[in-house]
Amino acid sequence: MVGSVMAADLATDHEVSCADLTPRHIPNVAYMPLDVTQREAVIKTVAPFDLVIGAVPGHLGYETLKAVIEAGKNVVDISFFPEDALELHEMAVRRNVIAVTDCGVAPGMCNMIAGYFDKQMAIDSYTCLVGGLPVVRTKPYEYKAPFSPIDVIEEYTRPARFRENGNIVTREALSEIEEIWFDGVGTLEAFNTDGLRSLLHTLKHIPNLKEKTLRYPGHAGLMKVFRDTGLFSKEPVPAAGSNVAPVDIVSQLLFSTWKYQRGEEDFTVMQVIIEGQDANGNVKHTWSLYDRYDTEQHVMSMARTTGYTATAVARLLLQQGWNTPGIIPPEHIGSNADAFQFVLQQLKERNVIYRNITFR
Amino acid sequence: MVGSVMAADLATDHEVSCADLTPRHIPNVAYMPLDVTQREAVIKTVAPFDLVIGAVPGHLGYETLKAVIEAGKNVVDISFFPEDALELHEMAVRRNVIAVTDCGVAPGMCNMIAGYFDKQMAIDSYTCLVGGLPVVRTKPYEYKAPFSPIDVIEEYTRPARFRENGNIVTREALSEIEEIWFDGVGTLEAFNTDGLRSLLHTLKHIPNLKEKTLRYPGHAGLMKVFRDTGLFSKEPVPAAGSNVAPVDIVSQLLFSTWKYQRGEEDFTVMQVIIEGQDANGNVKHTWSLYDRYDTEQHVMSMARTTGYTATAVARLLLQQGWNTPGIIPPEHIGSNADAFQFVLQQLKERNVIYRNITFR
Repeated sequence: MVGSVMAADLATDHEVSCADLTPRHIPNVAYMPLDVTQREAVIKTVAPFDLVIGAVPGHLGYETLKAVIEAGKNVVDISFFPEDALELHEMAVRRNVIAVTDCGVAPGMCNMIAGYFDKQMAIDSYTCLVGGLPVVRTKPYEYKAPFSPIDVIEEYTRPARFRENGNIVTREALSEIEEIWFDGVGTLEAFNTDGLRSLLHTLKHIPNLKEKTLRYPGHAGLMKVFRDTGLFSKEPVPAAGSNVAPVDIVSQLLFSTWKYQRGEEDFTVMQVIIEGQDANGNVKHTWSLYDRYDTEQHVMSMARTTGYTATAVARLLLQQGWNTPGIIPPEHIGSNADAFQFVLQQLKERNVIYRNITFR
Repeated sequence: MVGSVMAADLATDHEVSCADLTPRHIPNVAYMPLDVTQREAVIKTVAPFDLVIGAVPGHLGYETLKAVIEAGKNVVDISFFPEDALELHEMAVRRNVIAVTDCGVAPGMCNMIAGYFDKQMAIDSYTCLVGGLPVVRTKPYEYKAPFSPIDVIEEYTRPARFRENGNIVTREALSEIEEIWFDGVGTLEAFNTDGLRSLLHTLKHIPNLKEKTLRYPGHAGLMKVFRDTGLFSKEPVPAAGSNVAPVDIVSQLLFSTWKYQRGEEDFTVMQVIIEGQDANGNVKHTWSLYDRYDTEQHVMSMARTTGYTATAVARLLLQQGWNTPGIIPPEHIGSNADAFQFVLQQLKERNVIYRNITFR
């Protein structure tokens, strides 16, 4: 879904090929068959290209990225994989490869905003609130998943790690539910999820780092019921002469319930709040995104906000270059003010607009 | 749970034996090993006795009852089985057996109340509201099941059949949720379930017959989410190299969540509302039961209200006799005013008290 949007976007001013297991018909984009689990095939396939965009299912992300780095190709990746990309840093440096990871909206743009302000001021606290939701609310979940429900369930079960007063703290997922009003959207609920990823390591000098996920009110309570009843459990239960993890059944049922139908509109809302001190004293910056499904091009907001961030960074690397090789989390891109402005301008041209307000 | 309470109650003035798969240690009650799925064994085991009380899991109920009738023994049954007991009527008549079925609280006492008034007046409408609940409310379900969750789930999925304006109508289970206040209990919710059983056939001259189940508010909505997501489905889903019915997994998870802990108190609330005309004109009778866990004897209210109804009818048969053989649904017992008063008196002596109010 995101891959085809990125390919079409880049194809307006670049020569683009799409490598996938199944044929994709994208205007002005060549198709190459590829099974990314075949390391040698990945290396061979990417050989003739200047830059690779990685957009594979999370569980295949790390190994695919590793193969691309081995192939010596610069890469922008949006595969949300569980492994720590920084473990590939030395290999990337050795191969002189620039590999920008987690390069979507969140993780992605929120990291860039954090990195940008980290250079401008002494940050006391960084908070990111983010969610992708269907425009039309359908009871009881009032939620649709543009990707696999198993990844959403993972967000609802994995303990959330934050930084508070300089210490790493762990909170239960779906905890600390609070209702917050968003302009044009209305009241949503925000709750703890484990989404900080590289920021926990790269910005550990910031005493307070927090990410919360946004849903329509009531969703988190329902998901807590599911989780606390054991419906999201990976612990097998005997049934039908076998042992079955409840989550394997439940995720299938939620898959059909949570599936976006063709043409069903979504939106993305994100608010990044940064507080601290700069040369002029105490300051608070809020950066807000409210992006809707593109009803003309029929492109989901999730694909727009994620994909156009990745293509903006791809153009940054292709047109402006980047000074150092290695695994580059997006906060490093953001810490370069020119690079950050370039990305924002690219997004603006695609009508993905971040509004910022400064409070003193 | 109910069986031992009934055995102990009857053992105060009768010679009682308990036949079960596993040994039961009940004061003054002999134990006899019995697998009720072995028809011949059932017939042989019941041979020396005057009367049998049937209290087996629902799915074993019909065949066990059939074997007892074959053995020519009068029987009072509280096994809530899905089959239609009336199909055994001719066999019972032939064997000169009195078999009182569904002889608990609901079905059971509510049927007797209906049968009693059916003889006294022209009933326009019969409504029964009934539920068994834990005293201590624990989120999110605020419910515990004294029997297998699979039977509760069955109540939440099987369409509810009622009689309305003289016609049989079918409503979705868990539908028409309404909040009703009960004295001493507070606000509960009532929703449609399929609980009328024999009344749909025996009282078909009454134009309006309805039963609703009571829970703490919010429970039904949650169960609707479960059902509508497919969690209660018997339709197999592929998982772990097998095909698994979601309900087989989910009922196991609910079993541990819904299990009454030793000493955990329950209560039973029932309200039977009968409206119509008698010799003096329009009249409305409400019969209410509010029964609590017996903290001295440590007997659950569910066992008290169900079991003492069955033992009252057992004593009725043993002490007063009954005029005709056959399958006797409890409404037939109730239609005999003396028998009804006998049962009420027996219940009262065990502190299971029905309060009635007449409105004109």
